[in-house]
Amino acid sequence: MKITNYKEILPVTMDNEMVKNVAGRVLIGQEDGAPNFCMRLFEMGPEGFTPKHSHDWEHEVFVHDGNGEVFIEDKWYPLSPGSAIFVPPNVEHQFRNTTDKIFTFVCLVPPNAPEL
Amino acid sequence: MKITNYKEILPVTMDNEMVKNVAGRVLIGQEDGAPNFCMRLFEMGPEGFTPKHSHDWEHEVFVHDGNGEVFIEDKWYPLSPGSAIFVPPNVEHQFRNTTDKIFTFVCLVPPNAPEL
Repeated sequence: MKITNYKEILPVTMDNEMVKNVAGRVLIGQEDGAPNFCMRLFEMGPEGFTPKHSHDWEHEVFVHDGNGEVFIEDKWYPLSPGSAIFVPPNVEHQFRNTTDKIFTFVCLVPPNAPEL
Repeated sequence: MKITNYKEILPVTMDNEMVKNVAGRVLIGQEDGAPNFCMRLFEMGPEGFTPKHSHDWEHEVFVHDGNGEVFIEDKWYPLSPGSAIFVPPNVEHQFRNTTDKIFTFVCLVPPNAPEL
């Protein structure tokens, strides 16, 4: 079993051409004995974004705080606290922050995906 | 793909001897084509609790709002926004609200579990 809070886990920052102003953490993963899916949390600063890409695993995302948008199937959709997003495998997608506040969401992936 | 907000989904209320003052929703499930895990959201009112039970599937939980506790391995542990909990298969567990505000968390389960 594991009980933690994302604030207790040191984030890994990501800031390059593909991904800007993002801090990621694995909250629950294979190291914890989780067999079927991995829970990560991402914080995104102002003007931050994730890569625009696709891959052969799905995402299940829940927005915890802040406001942003997801690009999926050629459109941008607004996101706010309580939003839930299912990105199926092999669908191009991207997340971005749309305010000056931190945009925080959990994103779950199956075991064939990289944890972070 | 699916983009929703839990506030857009009608909750199913649960209130009996085993589970008190709980409203549940499936945010992402098999009906949406999600192959590997199901995302549910639970709101728990004052004095609310989930069943004290165990089963052969795991939980991955993320606390969105409010304060509560989880019973696991013979102890109660405090939970607050940003808490993440991994309940392995076959471990007895229970969640309860500890304040007068609504306690809100997402709880993910694999496909062999009931969705709600």
